[in-house]
This record gives sequence, structure tokens and C-alpha cells, in this order.
Amino acid sequence: MPVLVMKFGGTSVANLDRIRRAAKRVGVEVAKGYDVIVIVSAMSGKTNELVGWVGETSPLYDAREYDAVVSSGEIVTAGLMALTLQEMDVPARSWQGWQVPLKTNSAHSQARIEEIPTDNINAKFGEGMKVAVVAGFQGISPEGRVTTLGRGGSDTTAVAFAAAFDAERCDIYTDVDGVYTTDPRICDKARKLDKIAFEEMLELASLGAKVLQTRSVELAMRYKVKLRVLSSFEEQSDEAGTLVCDEEEIMESNVVNGVAYSRDEAKLTCLSVADRPGIAATIFTCLSEAGVNVDMIVQNISEEGRTDMTFSCPTDQVKRAEAALSSHKEKGDLNYGELVADTGVAKVSVVGIGMRSQSGVAAKMFRVLSDEGINIKVITTSEIKISVLIDRKYMELAVQALHDAFDLDKAS
Amino acid sequence: MPVLVMKFGGTSVANLDRIRRAAKRVGVEVAKGYDVIVIVSAMSGKTNELVGWVGETSPLYDAREYDAVVSSGEIVTAGLMALTLQEMDVPARSWQGWQVPLKTNSAHSQARIEEIPTDNINAKFGEGMKVAVVAGFQGISPEGRVTTLGRGGSDTTAVAFAAAFDAERCDIYTDVDGVYTTDPRICDKARKLDKIAFEEMLELASLGAKVLQTRSVELAMRYKVKLRVLSSFEEQSDEAGTLVCDEEEIMESNVVNGVAYSRDEAKLTCLSVADRPGIAATIFTCLSEAGVNVDMIVQNISEEGRTDMTFSCPTDQVKRAEAALSSHKEKGDLNYGELVADTGVAKVSVVGIGMRSQSGVAAKMFRVLSDEGINIKVITTSEIKISVLIDRKYMELAVQALHDAFDLDKAS
Repeated sequence: MPVLVMKFGGTSVANLDRIRRAAKRVGVEVAKGYDVIVIVSAMSGKTNELVGWVGETSPLYDAREYDAVVSSGEIVTAGLMALTLQEMDVPARSWQGWQVPLKTNSAHSQARIEEIPTDNINAKFGEGMKVAVVAGFQGISPEGRVTTLGRGGSDTTAVAFAAAFDAERCDIYTDVDGVYTTDPRICDKARKLDKIAFEEMLELASLGAKVLQTRSVELAMRYKVKLRVLSSFEEQSDEAGTLVCDEEEIMESNVVNGVAYSRDEAKLTCLSVADRPGIAATIFTCLSEAGVNVDMIVQNISEEGRTDMTFSCPTDQVKRAEAALSSHKEKGDLNYGELVADTGVAKVSVVGIGMRSQSGVAAKMFRVLSDEGINIKVITTSEIKISVLIDRKYMELAVQALHDAFDLDKAS
Repeated sequence: MPVLVMKFGGTSVANLDRIRRAAKRVGVEVAKGYDVIVIVSAMSGKTNELVGWVGETSPLYDAREYDAVVSSGEIVTAGLMALTLQEMDVPARSWQGWQVPLKTNSAHSQARIEEIPTDNINAKFGEGMKVAVVAGFQGISPEGRVTTLGRGGSDTTAVAFAAAFDAERCDIYTDVDGVYTTDPRICDKARKLDKIAFEEMLELASLGAKVLQTRSVELAMRYKVKLRVLSSFEEQSDEAGTLVCDEEEIMESNVVNGVAYSRDEAKLTCLSVADRPGIAATIFTCLSEAGVNVDMIVQNISEEGRTDMTFSCPTDQVKRAEAALSSHKEKGDLNYGELVADTGVAKVSVVGIGMRSQSGVAAKMFRVLSDEGINIKVITTSEIKISVLIDRKYMELAVQALHDAFDLDKAS
């Protein structure tokens, strides 16, 4: 039997009615002859509640306990989905991460998938089970403890299963009907894309477009998983949503295909760092060991042997970053004057594979922002994107102005 | 190190503040030099919410999925308790049922504990861990699926751990300060007992006194586990609460030591059953296979080769009982006229080890109920208890009248 992977996000399983609705979609695919692997998230709000409890209990929590607590939401949805399918006479059972087992490394709260053995689930398919409902976002470490894959890890779970089971397609059901040129909630001219290249999706995902988790797109690109994003709230045809695919499958494209933003950014600066070889390595090794996801990095021009080192990270990791740096400062590994945190910034980016062959995009972006009176704090670029850090209060304005300037409301 | 088991029920871990309070109690025992195994329930209300979702999704649910869903509440509390202890600098970690592993049989939703290997947890105690926080109520089947031990199964988990680890004592922290002669909420003369015999506690527990689960008392009796029930809401001395112990440790006792009740009882009658050998076996095998907990059984006098068979079970199992019996009737294994269910009944019982040597307790009980105009529907007796099924509306009245009549407000 061909295998299909279907992933339902938190809003698609927010209550029993929505679980039933999702189960009906699964039933449609089973009727077409697929063996289906369903990956579920926690009911919307649940994971945030659990994360909140952990944070309140222990600000610098033990990530192993965080994982044990936070992974419980998906277990509930998986069981309820299996029961709902059984009620519809579709043979189904639930699987928790450790039961598959979805094997990860020991990097708790941000674990990486190492292996998904297919024998247990395939044996059940062989016995007539039509749907394996798998609790997303979680796995088991070599030490036998529960791990989680980081926020949005259910997308990654879905793509990894699609790769492991050589699935025909991986459908990601969510509360939006596809991938947009930007967030329609802050720009009413946002337009749905029928197709988007893996590379572009990757930049959009990592820049904060919350449709798909970055790692899931990376994984899909590496294993050539046909990935589709579509709404669980609409009747769906086989061409609905947005297909995330190889660049070659897209005929013509705008220079810029999307404007992304990320609200939860913080900018930290280590003032007066000794400007000598190895200092950057020391700082960022220490941050990495503390589990801080550093994004942008800027080093200012050196004066009298001292320099300022600026970087950005998610706002909720600022405390962790500060603790890590000051503990190394106390130990004497690291010497800097002061650590300044600015938690009032946002990141805005333009993305497009067309940038590879078209120049002038950066200049145009900076001019647009300047015309709106928006000051740029940090800039980074890649082959197909340009990102800037700006004051958070200008974020919406910047997104709208860039969307207009690059004609994103018009199909190419 | 001597081992102590401490179990905290749902109200004792209802929110983060209460978890902190419970953790402080654990800290006190750790400071005395104990290695502590903490067994936690789900936050109060959580299990009911999960059970409700399962029932709404699938009235005749697959018990394996029920277990997967319903066991998640304890996982959350275990992780939060471990984090709270770590914040207090007490080395602790959480254990889910399958991680211990607490091995059970495959009787999902009412599984029985088969083995608790001590090596994993003892190894961690050896490495300096002071507290193992174990998610109560759950285990793992030989097939590798999550099982639950039935409602209140966290008490059973606690006693089983106390037996397996040869604990010095098993303290059950709950929202009451001990075992009472009856429920203080419906009888304001109820009196706290300092000690109660295992046998009495067993009858009280199985009769619906919700302080301890029946199986936990059975287990404590079998393995001579010193069991103490006490409040998590008061400062505790070493003599607080009620000690559940061997009969020999109690000097003098009233004839009757407790009045228990159970509100959620239903009475079912199979009318006009063929009165031939094997018919009772057929009926109750069929109910047992359907997982119905039959309590009282009465067979009426036979007329013309037909008889009526009456039994009681929890109200939430009535549908299951009806489905099981009617399916066997359809298959022709079972022949009866009609199945009549009365879900408006309650059970009231008097219990006391003194009954063994004192006669006249039954007569007195029936006279007291008769004086109040309460009709008795079914009677059962054991060596140390007498139970009656009555209309639910008379339940409180019956309890109060019996408590008065047997002078339970006065210590012996």
C-alpha cells in the first residue's frame, strides 16, 4: 500500500469536534487506498500552558524534565484521534514517541532525530491497521528519557516519517490555507502562493513565518519529500494549499517572493571585548553550550584592542544567554565590560530565489525603510534573503511597505 | 539509606503552589536522611477532564487508548514536582511508568502490577539522587503499551513501591487529615480515627470511602506496609493522621468503626432467566469479560423454572453491562426476558472488626433504617460489614442515623 503522512497542528485538533473533522479527512485518504501515518500536535494552547508551568516552577529548568512535561499534550491528542478513527470503523492505534521508537540524540528540548525504525508500525499495517496515529514533537534519547524536538517539532516529525516510510506525500494541515507572500494578519494585500521552492520556504520558515518549522523544510529538501501545506478548515481538492517543491518545478518567479518577520527577537551586545583571535569562538561556544539560538552576529570595528560584539537571539533565551556569559566572565574565560540587552527589536526580511540573478534588491529594501523613517540596527544577508533588525514598533509598517514596493500582491 | 514513600493526591498537587508545599514536605524527610520515592497523582480535575474526552469521543472505548490518554496527567505532575525539588536544591528526577518500568498485565484500564524492578531507581539513589518522583497510576504491559491501574491507582502504586523498596513507611498525603468514622461532609459528627485495622480499612475503601483505594490497602496488608493517611494542608508531626495497621496494634475498638456509602451504584435485574445450572456462571463471565465490576448479587426464588437475577455495578458501567448481556442474548448464549436498570440507588454499609464477636449488629442496622422509613432493596454481609442498597435520596439520612445509633461520635 502507498503511505501518506498527514500532520494536524494544534488548531486543527483544538477540541473533539475538530479532531472528528480531521479524522474525516484521514478517512477520505484511507478510502483512496492509502496506509496513513497521522502526526498530531497538542490541542492548541496546551503546550503553552505546560511550558508556562515549567517556566514558573524553574526559570533555568532541567531540560529533561521540561521534555517529560511538555510532551504530554501530544499523547492526549494521539489517543483521542485513534479513538475517533476507531469510532468511524477505521482500524487505528496511537504511538507515543518512545513506542515507535523515534530515536533522537540527548539534546533535550531541541533533540535531533537519529532514526525511525519502520518495523513496528509496518507490522501493524500488515495486520490490517490502516492508520498509525503518532504523537508529534517527541522521541526517546539513548538514555531512555523522553526528548522533544523544539517548538513546531511536529512538522519535523511528519517529514521524518514521510522520509522513513517513503511516503507519497506529506500533507501539513494547519489553520491557514497555504503559504503567503507575508502574514495576512499584518498585511491585507498578502497573496497565497501555489508553489514555493524549498530554499525560499526554508528562509521564510527560519525567519519566523510560522507555517512550517525550519527543520521540517530542511529535512523535506534533503529527502525530496513532497510537502503540502493546506487548511484543515476547508473541503480540500488534491491541488489545494501550497506545494513546497524543488526550484525546477516552478516556472517563473518574482525576484522577491515573501516578506517575513519575527517579533520575538532580542539584541545583545558585549561591550569592550578584547579583540584577539579566539574571542568570538569563546563567546559563541559558551552560548551554544547553554542552548542559546544565536541568529545574527555583528562585530564592530576595533578600537584600542577592544571591540563590541553584537548578536541576536529569541527574547525568551536572553536570561539564559546572560547567565552563561556572566558565569564565564566570573570564571575568567571571558573578559568584557558590560552586557547590554535590547529586547524591543524585531527582524524583517525579504526572500526570493530570483535574487540570485537580480541585483539591487538590498539597495531597494534599505531605501524603502529609510523613506518610512525606519532605522536599521543590524543587517545580514544570504544568497536569497536580506534581513534587518529594527525597532519592534515599526515592524508592521516595514512589512507593508516592503510588500508594496516589491509588488508581492501581483502574481508573476 | 532508609527509604520512605510519600504519595500526593490530586488536591495536594492541584497547582504550582501546592506542588511547592508538597515538595517542602518531601524536603523535610530528605533532611532526616531518607531516600524518598514520591508518587504523584494528576492535578485535581485533570484525570476527569481526560476521562470525559475519551467517553465523549467513544462511549465503548478501546481501553488501550483510554490508558494512553488518561495516564498523561500524572506525567505532568511528576515532571513539575522534580523541577520544584531541583529548585530547592534537592537532587530529583521524574520517572514515567514505562521508565521504571512498572510492569503490569494487559488488563488495560484496570491493570494489575506484576513487578517493580528496583535497580534503575536504586542506581540513581547510589549516584546521589535523593528523590525519585514517579508518575502514579500507570505501568507498561508485556506488549509495551501504557496501562493504568484503575481510578485511585496512585495509592496502589505508592504501596507497591513501598513493598518493592522495603520502605520504612508509606505516607499518603491527601485533602483530609485521616480516616473518619464516616464522611464529614454528610455527617458533622464524624470523628477521626487514630488507628484503623487493615481489614476495616479494606471494607471502608471498597465501600466507597474515597480516602484510599481498595487494592492499595489489600497490598499493604499482604506486604505489611505501614500505611499512614494524612493531610497535605497542615503542618505534620510524626504521629499525625490515621495509621492503617494490623488488628493486633489496636487495643480496644467499637463494634462498628465506620459507616461508608457509595453514591454511584446501579442495580440491574435480568428478568425471567432460565433457572438451570451454569446460568449464573454465563451471566457473570460475560460481565467480567466486558470489564464490569459486579458488586452485590441476588437471585430471587425461582418460579416455573425461571428466576430473576439482580446485581449491582458502578453507574458508569451500566451501558457496558447492557451491551455485553444483550450481545450474548442475540448470540443465543443467554436467555432472559428483560433487563431492568435502576440507576437511582446508593449503598450504605457499617463496618467493624468487633462484629466478629458481637451479634445483633444487622438487626440493629435494619431497625434504624426502618425507623427512618427507608426501604432496603438488596442486602449483603461479610464477617465485618453489612451493606444495603437503598434509594439514593435517603443516603445521607441513612448514614447520619446509623452513625448516631452506633455511637460513632464517641471514642471507644
